Amino acid sequence: MRRWNGWGDEQVQLPLAPEAKLFLLEVLGEAKNGPNADLNTAIARLSASRLDDTKLWTTNPAQRIRYSLGQSLPDWLQLRYGLIAQAPDAVAFPESREEVRAVLQQAAQQGCVVIPYGGGTSVAGHVNVQASSRPVITLVMQRMMQLQSLDTEAQLATFGAGVLGPDLEAQLRARGFTLGHFPQSFEYSSLGGWVVTRSSGQQSLGYGRIEAMFAGGHLETPGGSLDIRAFPASAAGTDLREIVLGSEGRIGVLTDVTVRVQRLPEKESFIAVCFPDWESGRQALRQMAQQQIPLSMLRLSNATETATSLKLAGHVQQVTWLERYLRWRGCAEQKCMAIIGTSGSALQVRQALQQAKQVWRQHSGIGLGTLLGKKWQHGRFRNVYLRNTLWDMGYAIDTVETATDWSRITPLMQAVEQAARGAFAEEGEAVHTYTHLSHVYTQGASVYTTFVYRLSGDYQTDLRRWQRLKRAASEAITTFGGTISHQHGVGLDHAPYLHVEKGQAGLEVIRSLYRHFDPQDMMNPGKCVAAKGD
Amino acid sequence: MRRWNGWGDEQVQLPLAPEAKLFLLEVLGEAKNGPNADLNTAIARLSASRLDDTKLWTTNPAQRIRYSLGQSLPDWLQLRYGLIAQAPDAVAFPESREEVRAVLQQAAQQGCVVIPYGGGTSVAGHVNVQASSRPVITLVMQRMMQLQSLDTEAQLATFGAGVLGPDLEAQLRARGFTLGHFPQSFEYSSLGGWVVTRSSGQQSLGYGRIEAMFAGGHLETPGGSLDIRAFPASAAGTDLREIVLGSEGRIGVLTDVTVRVQRLPEKESFIAVCFPDWESGRQALRQMAQQQIPLSMLRLSNATETATSLKLAGHVQQVTWLERYLRWRGCAEQKCMAIIGTSGSALQVRQALQQAKQVWRQHSGIGLGTLLGKKWQHGRFRNVYLRNTLWDMGYAIDTVETATDWSRITPLMQAVEQAARGAFAEEGEAVHTYTHLSHVYTQGASVYTTFVYRLSGDYQTDLRRWQRLKRAASEAITTFGGTISHQHGVGLDHAPYLHVEKGQAGLEVIRSLYRHFDPQDMMNPGKCVAAKGD
Repeated sequence: MRRWNGWGDEQVQLPLAPEAKLFLLEVLGEAKNGPNADLNTAIARLSASRLDDTKLWTTNPAQRIRYSLGQSLPDWLQLRYGLIAQAPDAVAFPESREEVRAVLQQAAQQGCVVIPYGGGTSVAGHVNVQASSRPVITLVMQRMMQLQSLDTEAQLATFGAGVLGPDLEAQLRARGFTLGHFPQSFEYSSLGGWVVTRSSGQQSLGYGRIEAMFAGGHLETPGGSLDIRAFPASAAGTDLREIVLGSEGRIGVLTDVTVRVQRLPEKESFIAVCFPDWESGRQALRQMAQQQIPLSMLRLSNATETATSLKLAGHVQQVTWLERYLRWRGCAEQKCMAIIGTSGSALQVRQALQQAKQVWRQHSGIGLGTLLGKKWQHGRFRNVYLRNTLWDMGYAIDTVETATDWSRITPLMQAVEQAARGAFAEEGEAVHTYTHLSHVYTQGASVYTTFVYRLSGDYQTDLRRWQRLKRAASEAITTFGGTISHQHGVGLDHAPYLHVEKGQAGLEVIRSLYRHFDPQDMMNPGKCVAAKGD
Repeated sequence: MRRWNGWGDEQVQLPLAPEAKLFLLEVLGEAKNGPNADLNTAIARLSASRLDDTKLWTTNPAQRIRYSLGQSLPDWLQLRYGLIAQAPDAVAFPESREEVRAVLQQAAQQGCVVIPYGGGTSVAGHVNVQASSRPVITLVMQRMMQLQSLDTEAQLATFGAGVLGPDLEAQLRARGFTLGHFPQSFEYSSLGGWVVTRSSGQQSLGYGRIEAMFAGGHLETPGGSLDIRAFPASAAGTDLREIVLGSEGRIGVLTDVTVRVQRLPEKESFIAVCFPDWESGRQALRQMAQQQIPLSMLRLSNATETATSLKLAGHVQQVTWLERYLRWRGCAEQKCMAIIGTSGSALQVRQALQQAKQVWRQHSGIGLGTLLGKKWQHGRFRNVYLRNTLWDMGYAIDTVETATDWSRITPLMQAVEQAARGAFAEEGEAVHTYTHLSHVYTQGASVYTTFVYRLSGDYQTDLRRWQRLKRAASEAITTFGGTISHQHGVGLDHAPYLHVEKGQAGLEVIRSLYRHFDPQDMMNPGKCVAAKGD
């Protein structure tokens, strides 16, 4: 069963090796076990629902709690301390467009707010309930998850928008196809959620971001239905898909999604390459991206992330030998590990790697073959379980992500890391901080920074710490020319910084779009771009 | 000097070989020379301007005529018969954002309509003046054409939006870069025009459509300025670029455009491949697109276009030998010629062609090397001059274009061609009709159909003929599942068909966007999506 206050399936554990624990002890100090309230405690504290049960929704307290929050660190604090600030008054599980429409109509009639909920993996507060005089209904899409049609010639598949990653891929793979969208949240995030938050998967370099996959769909809005037809390309005025992408539940509920799929590749390969330092690695990735070498993934860890990964991996003996070899080849303390992915026919994979090799050699990269690549592939959706393990040990782990131009990446990364490391200086608490680039473009790359620090054992202290860290990192991102989100969306947590990149005129046009579909501001109010006066 | 009532530079002639003339005579019958009014005749018929000259604009009659129309066939009829239905009351040539702003402010104060004008190459009526009680100012962007900045690391270039294709490429090439956007109108179309009409260049398979190149920019609207910052990618809510793309002058004036550019490729190659029939060619192109073979162009002429091109090429001797060789290799009457383009390093070009060859051989394609490819490349912007030659001979040439899914391409093409061939049946006039695919996607391809037919010598007859042909072709396109435009935009001519793909709810949201920026409906009114009641 899915954990109610942690990541993923209760059966999945990701224990740390003793050496990994020792490493955390060294860098952050001893920690006491993190809090872990039980569901009944949270239920007992829940305020009464302001709605009655209907055929359309339930007011069951356990359901209200299970669908009250996402996976951001402040969400975890609420869940683990058993202090759910706000839960929806009711939860609806529609099974069809008609039922979605009925929920919206009933909600409008009763003056309710509706929060669309896909997989609940948001790390930016997209599905959180905010204090409101209006009752809140969380509309869970999980029952709308069928593959409705597959056009094998046009490579178009239409799904219910609530389908989660594994179910989507299983239905496609059975027919020889793949979507190729693999965000780290893959196991629990939904197709509709990917679209409305502009998600990006780990192999976006080859398969494209969700924007490129999203070909059309159907939306139920307070003002009526919107059908978006799928064309290969069109110059016919405004692209309606773009009204839906990044709309974060503010204009309605995406019920059906048509995506561009691809035949399962004959071959897929991930190889590791070690660079002697950050700058060599960054230049190599830039060159591969700008030369349009047909790879499916490019990922580069900075020196701290590389060292941390090797420490947390366990396998002391093998890592020692690897590091000895790398040192002999010129990759020592400052070494940075990259993972390079390729997909396609055997010929395509071979040719792409040949092109990539020319570039990494120019930048003193050492090819390490597929062993570490396979390890990365094996852990690609498992590492997120590390959060449970660390929490139990008393450590919080959180991330921020952005994208910026190639020339700004290093100063931005340094600024974010410095801001984070110093965030708790006055308390004398360390923040272990490291970064990778995981999505590359001709113009620049995403920058993804991770923070690990000790929990205090006190909810208010931990919340304040997170707020301080999040603010420091977000200010560094916007000051140094990054977008406030490359792949996680805006939600609540990034909303205060959005004006920096959109400008007031930009926010106004987004508001006018929301108003067009939702004049009563009943759809997920306050998220992304708040109506004036929120 | 640029022709006032034809395509391109007055010095450029594209004479037809005698055999080509004979071919037209055979398929369409003898024609009498097309009309060719002179500028003074048109000026003499011009109604008086309702505006006075100011520092911001001129009411010079020759200028009013020169900027009154685009390049659609009905535009040509007006220009060649010297019967300009409507001209702007004044023409403005702003040199800065401030001057653009001043024109918009003055226009608003005087209750005028403003039509933004890039290169005037629209074939869909984007820049046409419509009868209006409000005076009309055409705002010509051509003086805003400077390269303002070039970030060689992020590969971003910012230009004045009025820059035309050759000036843009010249400024970039001098610094070792290219945009890679080459529509057939390249010589006279502008960067801003490409963006607001969602243009697609001949090598969009490699370089992307203008949507992918457009990174950010600046817009002056009646309601104020909108700045769009350029990020490599972002998940931060609605993408403001998409408000501008396809806006067709309806929300304001795009003054500055930041585009993603690329280093000039080491090598570029176009080769010809002949398929024995249409279906073999279509399947080969589909497979190359869906296998993501890194080509920069894929283009396939149907049998009639292939035969017509060979006839119009002249060079009877060489063509005879080529056809004899092809027949021996199995490509006879139904043969379809494809052009395959590749760009990149020498290694990349070699590898891409190796992959492509595997596919074309599976589909009985015969590789013909680079000779015909070079010929195509040489003529890529010259063939549009053929329109002048044909007109002088008494023939009209026009095109329609769409995109649809792979499975719909053949029935759609047949329906469009059949509708066109029969359009003048009651008059006993033939329409010579042929088609190519020129932009391919995993989902489908663009379908581009050309019509050649005789001019009547009478303006009203020719206009009615065009209307009948355009309606027949457009109805076939929408009935058979195509978008009303893959690359030319909506303007006036495609507006009646837009509801089929957007739906009424889709048109409403587009209207609400226009209203947000332009509550007085002063920007290019009636184009793309008309305000209600227009």
